[in-house]
Amino acid sequence: MPCNYDPPVNWEPVMNYQRFFEEAIDQIHAERRYRVFADLERIAGQFPRAIWRANGRAEEITVWCSNDYLGMGQHPDVIAAMQNVAGRMGSGAGGTRNISGNNHPLVELEHELADLHGKEAGLVFTSGFVSNEAAISTIARLLPNCLVLSDELNHASMIEGVRRSGAEKKILRHNDMAHLESQLQAAGRERAKLIVFESVYSMDGDIAPIKQIADLAEKYNAMTYIDEVHAVGMYGPRGGGITEREGLAHRIDIIEGTLAKAFGTLGGYITGTRTVVDAVRSYAPGFIFTTSLPPAIAAAATTAIRHLKTSQQERDGQQRQAQRTKEVLSAAGLPVMPSQTHIVPLLVGDPELCKMASDRLLGLHGIYIQPINYPTVPRGTERLRITPTPFHSDALIDALQDALVETWDALGIPYGETGRPAVAKSDRIIPLLVPKSGG
Amino acid sequence: MPCNYDPPVNWEPVMNYQRFFEEAIDQIHAERRYRVFADLERIAGQFPRAIWRANGRAEEITVWCSNDYLGMGQHPDVIAAMQNVAGRMGSGAGGTRNISGNNHPLVELEHELADLHGKEAGLVFTSGFVSNEAAISTIARLLPNCLVLSDELNHASMIEGVRRSGAEKKILRHNDMAHLESQLQAAGRERAKLIVFESVYSMDGDIAPIKQIADLAEKYNAMTYIDEVHAVGMYGPRGGGITEREGLAHRIDIIEGTLAKAFGTLGGYITGTRTVVDAVRSYAPGFIFTTSLPPAIAAAATTAIRHLKTSQQERDGQQRQAQRTKEVLSAAGLPVMPSQTHIVPLLVGDPELCKMASDRLLGLHGIYIQPINYPTVPRGTERLRITPTPFHSDALIDALQDALVETWDALGIPYGETGRPAVAKSDRIIPLLVPKSGG
Repeated sequence: MPCNYDPPVNWEPVMNYQRFFEEAIDQIHAERRYRVFADLERIAGQFPRAIWRANGRAEEITVWCSNDYLGMGQHPDVIAAMQNVAGRMGSGAGGTRNISGNNHPLVELEHELADLHGKEAGLVFTSGFVSNEAAISTIARLLPNCLVLSDELNHASMIEGVRRSGAEKKILRHNDMAHLESQLQAAGRERAKLIVFESVYSMDGDIAPIKQIADLAEKYNAMTYIDEVHAVGMYGPRGGGITEREGLAHRIDIIEGTLAKAFGTLGGYITGTRTVVDAVRSYAPGFIFTTSLPPAIAAAATTAIRHLKTSQQERDGQQRQAQRTKEVLSAAGLPVMPSQTHIVPLLVGDPELCKMASDRLLGLHGIYIQPINYPTVPRGTERLRITPTPFHSDALIDALQDALVETWDALGIPYGETGRPAVAKSDRIIPLLVPKSGG
Repeated sequence: MPCNYDPPVNWEPVMNYQRFFEEAIDQIHAERRYRVFADLERIAGQFPRAIWRANGRAEEITVWCSNDYLGMGQHPDVIAAMQNVAGRMGSGAGGTRNISGNNHPLVELEHELADLHGKEAGLVFTSGFVSNEAAISTIARLLPNCLVLSDELNHASMIEGVRRSGAEKKILRHNDMAHLESQLQAAGRERAKLIVFESVYSMDGDIAPIKQIADLAEKYNAMTYIDEVHAVGMYGPRGGGITEREGLAHRIDIIEGTLAKAFGTLGGYITGTRTVVDAVRSYAPGFIFTTSLPPAIAAAATTAIRHLKTSQQERDGQQRQAQRTKEVLSAAGLPVMPSQTHIVPLLVGDPELCKMASDRLLGLHGIYIQPINYPTVPRGTERLRITPTPFHSDALIDALQDALVETWDALGIPYGETGRPAVAKSDRIIPLLVPKSGG
């Protein structure tokens, strides 16, 4: 976790705050994981194009790492809903849910979400991070002597929720059913147990064996909590996620999702029985003591969800272009990591090379793919994480391939097992004149 | 804190999750603090009027408990900024700050905030809750052997931040400088210390002795962290809060604020030196792993901040109407609690009466003031918390007084020390026919 920082042992006796924080930053630089945020301006109607500002210049680039997975953030109906409701109800909610901030579009959104997952109730938070942290910590804290069984690749927000619950936890080997069963068996049917996992793991693009987890949960009397943030909108005939696609939503106690990825807006949510949702609503400080989502955001999210409940073309387009991206890059010998989903990870295996590749792609090719380094992924598996959308055309995919091959050659990044492509590429290396700060 | 729930001791040996959560909800009902959210639809252009839906009906009411303190949520420029940027850049950010979500309006917003407080840098979070939790926990965790000195009336988000830091903490008696000094002295100059406090305490409306705190922090070499969420936009010649009004911003290390109250939108922020802001930016999971605020929200917030940097009329109007509200209610003998700010608390002193008063005001008088009960305030100090804005006209204040007196008489709530007004009011009691569920 990025929160750990070990101060030098020869620390001065009197605290020098400024110097201390400088050294904390220096350590991140030394580990080559200092983050510089690319200054972007998305262009509605031209997604995935955006304006990138750096070194006093502004230029148009193509974003290949957005989590606006279906481009719903630029859908005319979604934007119109946001504009209309802002015009009618204003820019903010004006209070917490309890103190004047419970706006009607938010009430409608929660009904829409409950319906999406076939659950009794939904509850919206200001982010997916907060929804995981608040819901997991509250449920596991309320349950007496709860044991949390948490997949080792769970997102930081889930880890924070587990930690903050104060409950005992066991970290499960990733998607390892034998490990899960042995832990459930050891805890026994009597004890309260919460299994916490994701449907789509976003850095690798693999999928949890949800049915087996539900079977084991039933056998050993455990509650189940699934994070579907990288699946809602994109999988299942109505966009209800992997649980909907596999007909398993009714077998999972709490389904958590986000409004900020495929639904193109902001916020997170949980759905479940009226009782468990009410308990989180009533006991979670991260829900109670925070201003509600603005009505305009809620209305935009509802519009996106409703659209994707009946429209299949975005999902089909995403799957088609993701598949084509995998094929084109693999055919070029690039080290595409195996993925069962729309996520296309490309192995680099070194933090500095990964950052250099990202900088070169952006500065030279106008292609923006953020490097993914430790602690988001294990050291040695640093990667470029590519997220094709229905709006990444065949021509854009071909341009991506050319740019990646040029970059791989120029920086000497290893190709995949199938090796470097037969055609000599070295003559395609372009000299990089201007140092770039993006990425 | 609302997270504590002691399960019955005679618990069944095999966990019955559904029944367990039902009982957790029952306990909140039994303590008379089950929250029912009023379903509201604000009417832009007619603030503080809103549509309230209950029991299948919709009616217009006046909101008297909004934290949209200056009505900026309905300001035409703020709404226009939100609509325009949504049209140009779409409804969402599409990613975390590091992964494609660092939108240009958000970069501009952070510059605007740094300027507002005269600091080197600003950092925006998805909520004020997250900004406190993430910033306090990260700073106190990074500093070696940090001692956190935290005012006993600090907001839940600050308490969560202190808790999660894992640092040793001392709870300070509210605004008690002798207590603060004794704790600083005991810790010594050598040790890292973080003083965490608010400028305006929102449930009582009193103000911290900021200068004395800054003096003590300097004397004993402590860092200072102030929460100005109930002051930014409203105090100081440019809306920089109490620290600006008193010329003390440069003496406080971190100034935290919100975009969701006087600035009428959503989100929270910190400002400080480039180094400490960079440390929080680089180490806080609650910042790193969450989707950025949408560009339209950022642009709306920037517009509100810029407007309030030069326009004094909203601040003057708020102070004038808050003062008038205090005077009118006090003259009617109502138990107005002392307040140095725009917040007007009215003592009820009993949770059930407080809820009944709120229900009656809403159902009978079309006046919405949420009851404030434990744990938000100590038991026995349950209150109605009234927040007059520049848009609460003299006529609305008079109507409020009439409605409150009718309610106090009908329910037999004690009047203030000056006693019940001379005029007999009992003939004004109106029979309440339809039971209401609001509040």
